[in-house]
This record gives sequence, structure tokens and C-alpha cells, in this order.
Amino acid sequence: MPRHVVAAGDAGQPVRGPLPRTRGRQRTHLPVEVAYVAALSRVRIVGTGLIGTSIGLAIRDRGVEVSLSDPSPTAVALAADLGAGRLATDDDPAPELIVVAAPPDVTGDVVAQQLTRFPQATVTDVASVKRVIAHELAEAGADASRYVGGHPMAGRERSGAISGRSDLFQGRPWVVVPTSNSHPGRVEQVCALAELAGAVVTRMEAAEHDAAVAAVSHVPQVAASLVASRLRELPTESVALAGQGLRDVTRIAASDPALWTQILVGNASAVRDILAELARDLGGVVAALDAIGDNPDALAPGARGVLAALVADGNAGHARIPGKHGLTAVAYGVVTVVVADEPGTVARLLHDIGAEGVNMEDLHIEHEVGRQVGIVQVSVVPQAVEPLIEALRRRGWNVRD
Amino acid sequence: MPRHVVAAGDAGQPVRGPLPRTRGRQRTHLPVEVAYVAALSRVRIVGTGLIGTSIGLAIRDRGVEVSLSDPSPTAVALAADLGAGRLATDDDPAPELIVVAAPPDVTGDVVAQQLTRFPQATVTDVASVKRVIAHELAEAGADASRYVGGHPMAGRERSGAISGRSDLFQGRPWVVVPTSNSHPGRVEQVCALAELAGAVVTRMEAAEHDAAVAAVSHVPQVAASLVASRLRELPTESVALAGQGLRDVTRIAASDPALWTQILVGNASAVRDILAELARDLGGVVAALDAIGDNPDALAPGARGVLAALVADGNAGHARIPGKHGLTAVAYGVVTVVVADEPGTVARLLHDIGAEGVNMEDLHIEHEVGRQVGIVQVSVVPQAVEPLIEALRRRGWNVRD
Repeated sequence: MPRHVVAAGDAGQPVRGPLPRTRGRQRTHLPVEVAYVAALSRVRIVGTGLIGTSIGLAIRDRGVEVSLSDPSPTAVALAADLGAGRLATDDDPAPELIVVAAPPDVTGDVVAQQLTRFPQATVTDVASVKRVIAHELAEAGADASRYVGGHPMAGRERSGAISGRSDLFQGRPWVVVPTSNSHPGRVEQVCALAELAGAVVTRMEAAEHDAAVAAVSHVPQVAASLVASRLRELPTESVALAGQGLRDVTRIAASDPALWTQILVGNASAVRDILAELARDLGGVVAALDAIGDNPDALAPGARGVLAALVADGNAGHARIPGKHGLTAVAYGVVTVVVADEPGTVARLLHDIGAEGVNMEDLHIEHEVGRQVGIVQVSVVPQAVEPLIEALRRRGWNVRD
Repeated sequence: MPRHVVAAGDAGQPVRGPLPRTRGRQRTHLPVEVAYVAALSRVRIVGTGLIGTSIGLAIRDRGVEVSLSDPSPTAVALAADLGAGRLATDDDPAPELIVVAAPPDVTGDVVAQQLTRFPQATVTDVASVKRVIAHELAEAGADASRYVGGHPMAGRERSGAISGRSDLFQGRPWVVVPTSNSHPGRVEQVCALAELAGAVVTRMEAAEHDAAVAAVSHVPQVAASLVASRLRELPTESVALAGQGLRDVTRIAASDPALWTQILVGNASAVRDILAELARDLGGVVAALDAIGDNPDALAPGARGVLAALVADGNAGHARIPGKHGLTAVAYGVVTVVVADEPGTVARLLHDIGAEGVNMEDLHIEHEVGRQVGIVQVSVVPQAVEPLIEALRRRGWNVRD
């Protein structure tokens, strides 16, 4: 059990004593003088799709009584059968916390309904954009002191209760987004929920959250789609020159148009702001390339500087992306091995790496066009590179470095 | 030896008889009536950096006499010591083929010098942009019938002779780019060189080549840099929400600004053309998001359609990227396994996969923020998914699907 789920039934009551602590980076942001002890004994989940069902599965075996509801009787029955909780009834005691896991475009309405129906309960949601929900609640005149937004940053390619997993949120960020009116004790309850589900809690304001997901998720999606779109008319021989760089940049371009339309619509202004900056920089790049044109020797004052700054600025931004386990990015060393493309070959390689006591930080496999060989790039901490190369060569591997 | 390296010393002489064939897609593009037999007994490599040295290493043990030259006596001596060839002298018999592997910005000049110095020889190069080289040769009044452009699409993060590898071109595309004046026999010689080095030959015209690399390499680089640039000013807590999508899109944003400035300058107009299209689409997206703004319920005619088309067009372009071994992309099935983040764990997993006789098409490891566990996604052919899941569960693995 998380440290601050220590008592039941006293949501929102100030308690003096040792501070509850959330994991990781956020702990210094907690209020210093007064802490609220969160209680989670009765949770109601409204919406039993992938996320709602997974939350039920994750918290039900942690001592929480979970009731489930959904407009679809089939969906809610399935979630209950899968063990996410029991079907909600009208005779249920009032829940302490209600999790609205409805589609983003109806989340605001459902949250408002639940706030009205259960006048003592805290209500949270899981929508991937947050300002629009708070806005809708304000317009509906809902009791915003009992609403705390949430965004568990986990998902799957599949949807529905059937795809629910109790470990879906393990180690993933779960952004808790209080409104300016959210009661601190209610905020603690939602943090407790996220931690019970195994997630890492990060608190943010709605605008900050929406700008963050615009930058780290929505804008990259737009960029990947735009780059991939350019391949539609390219001759087949030309597309065949694609390497790993293009594959990486465009991987998420395979995403679902309907889902992404909904996401982009919900976060339109934050995405627009960043894309407008990006478009401004892109305009500068196009102008610089235009000035150079077909003659690289032409006098094009500043053009080379614009192009160099583009790539250098990208370096600077890229360096800020954290590495594994939420730590700052580490410059891992890469060991490159040429292997036959046969069952078991990579396994034997990784077995040999493990036998040397080296922990693999990342692994990248590139297949070569027209050849039955693969290039395996193994990332390890820098000090492991040289010993590993030596050891693998001794074991007969074709190591490139 | 490649099939069409059948005689020496007769470069450019028409021969009647069985057609020489190059591998793969291009074979139907060969001239039908007259074929030229390529000869490669004496090759001179001018420029002994990574690419020049690797070419020497790759072809020297294939029966070709390789001589090396470089403006730097140290660089050429190192390449010779590494086994890439012997130092060129003034008494050498004239080479049949000269490979100019100089930096892109001096390639045109060096090619022109070599054409003049060796009036019988074929000259090729390795620069990553091709129109500008042909242009420079035309301006210099060089004998374009003996020049055939080349672009081996292989490289490493490190440069210099010391990083040279005989297998650098194994299975990689090598684009052969004749000018309109290139003699067919000379073209065959350059194809023979690429095949000797283990590469897969693709023939293209210069404009087609430059447009292709702009789309599959240079534009993705610009897009990755632009997206990564936006992270510079983002709060640390916001960057911490980064997931695998952002990591993939921005991986190549870590590239070298000096190198990429040179590449973008050399292919300015082709890159500009595609970026201008991308900017036009981006402008449409920004306008659509602007029309929606902070109110997803606002009447914004067509805005949702623009966003849906953006993602759908990206789907269509992404679907054209070939999969491994140059085949059309296959929709692999993915098996997801949660593993402890300890040395040897992934190896044991892959050993078990190999033991089931399943060939892994790709492997993706995602570490989870703040947790010592990893998520391993194994791509296999669709029909292997269900049996593999069953087998892995039987072997005690925590399989998510």
C-alpha cells in the first residue's frame, strides 16, 4: 500500500503529523504545513473501456472495493467478469472517489453528472487533455472543489475491457491536474489512486499539462504524419532507399486517424501554439534553402547559419529527453554486431552478453535490404563497451567496433 | 565475383551475348540489345576516409588491385596499413576505375582533375547529392561520358580510415547515377564496383536520386530537428512525460550540425521543394486548429476533416516504407512481455523464443519511468503470435497479450 493510504472515510480532513510523500520528483512540491490523508476504500469507475477496466484490475487487489458502471451493459458485465470490480447498484453506499473513464468528448458531461449525483464524492477523469474539461465543468456550474483532473499516460493499440491489464500503469506517468478550486484532500485521493495503480504521480496545472502533451506527444504525431505523407507520391525505387532514420521518424504515422482527430481537436490551441513556432522555424529553413537553390556556391548570406542552427537547436532539445527510469539521458555506448537472420541468433548473442554480466540498456535491430543478415546495436553503459567487444569477439561474434 | 565481371581491360566495349544482370529490382531496366562487360582489375581510390577506406577493404580481397591516394599522407598510410590497398605512385599503370571519396564540397573538383589526369579511366564518386556534382563537371568542361555518379547509402557515427569496415556496404543500397552522357560500359563498371562491395545496386537519374534522398533522409532530419527544438524551453517535468513516440521521432535530431549543414546545402532545392509542400500542409493544420481554438464544440467547418486527412495521409505514406530485406512492409504481430531489468533477462526471453523455432522480425525495449522493469515487444509473423504467446506463458513469462 502507498504510504499515505492510512485511514478510510476521512477524505479532505486536515491531519497534522508526518507528511505523506509521493514518489520521485514531485515530493518537494507538497504542502509543507498541512497534509490531507487520502482514503480509498470505495471507488466507482464510470466507463469500462481499456483504461477504466485496467484501473479496476489494478486497484481491486489492493484492498479497494470497486464498483463499475458503463452505458453499455455488455461492456460493464465483461469488465466485472474480468475481475475489474462488481456491477454498481442503486443501493451501493456512496463512493469516496469516482473515476470517469469515458471518451474525451463526453468526459466533461459525465464528470458534471457524477458530481451532482454524489455530493460528497471526489471525481477524477482520465482524458488526455485537461483545460477543456475544466472549462466544461465551469460552464455547467459544477462543484469544482471536488473535481481533480487526471491523465494516466498509458495505453495500448487495442481498446475495450477485453484489453484491460492490471499492470497497464506500472511505472508510467500519471499526471494529476487540480483545478484552482480543487480541495487539497481531494487531490491527495487522486494521487493515492494513481499510486495504487502503480503509476508515478506528477502534478501539473491544466495549461501546463496540455502544453506538455502537445510538445511531447501531439506535435510529434503531426510531424510524423506530415513527413510520411510526403512518401505517398514517391516512386517505389525511391522509397526503397529508406533507412532506419525514416522508419523511426514515421513509426507513429501509422496511428488511428479517428482517435487522433479527437485528441488534436481537444488540445487544439496548445498544439497550434507549438506548431506555429515550428512553422515559423520551418519557413526560415525553406527561405535559407531557397536562397541557396541549385548553386551551393551562391552568395546566400546567413543561409548556412540558419541550417546549422536548425540542427544545433534540435541537438539541444533532444538532449533534454530523459533516459530510462526517468533519469536524465545517459550517453550509452553502442556495440554493433552483424548476425545471421535466423531463429535464435539474437537470443544467443544476448545470452552471451548476459553471461558477461553486462546489462543491456537498449537494443536495436536493423535488417539489411536484400540480405539475410541483421545488424544488432546493443546499448550499454560506456565503461562496458570495450570489455564487451573483447568478450563477444572471443566468443566468435562478428563485432563491428 | 558478380556475374558480369567476366573479362578485364575491355571497359566500354560492346559485347553480344548473354546479358549481364544486376541484382533485384533494376534488372529489367538494362539495355536489351547491347551489353557492356565491366572490368575491374585496377581501381584507384581518391580519399581514404571512412567510405574510401571501406571500399578498399571490401573489394581488395575480391581480386581487385587497389591503389590509394589522399591529400593527407597520414590518412592514406593508415588506410594502406589497414589493408585497404597500396599507396598510389606515379609509376602505376593507369586505373580502369577511379573512386573519388572526398568530402561533398570538393568532390566535383576532384572528379574533374581525375578525368583529366587519366584520359581512359572511368570516374565515380560517393557524394550523397548528385545533381550539383554533374553541374560542376559540366561547368568545368570535363569529359562527362567517363563519369558515373554513385551514392553508397551506408555510414557510421564515426569517421576516418580507422573506422573503415569491409562489410560497411553489405546489403545496403548503392545508387548508381549515370549522367545523360555516361557511356553504358562505364555505368556497368560502377555497378560492378558496388556489387563487389556487397551492396544492392539501384540505378537512378540525378534528379530522381536527389528527390529520393530528400524525402527519405533529409526532410526527416529537418522534421526531427524542428520537433526536438521545441523541447528546449519546456519545463523539466513536462519533458519527463516523454514516451517512445517522441524518442523515435527525435532520435536523429542528435545528428552533427556541421555535416548536416553541408548535406542540406548540397541538396537545397530538392529539400526545399518537399519542405514547401510540408509547410503548406502544416499551414492547413495550424489553420484548422486555430478555427477550433479553445472550444472543441465550436462550428469550424472542415477543420476536423483537415486533421483526419493529415493522419490518414500519413498512414498511406507510412505503409509504403518497405520492411526488412527490401520487401514490402509486412504487418507483423507484436507479443509484449514484461521483464525484470536485469542482465540476461532479455537473453533468456529470446532464447526461449528461438527454442520455439520462431524468428524474431524486430525487437523493441521500453523501460518504464521509475521502475526497474522493461517492456519487450517482439515482432513476429502474424501466424506465430498465438503459438508464441502460449509457449512463453508455459515457460513462465509475463506476456501481456
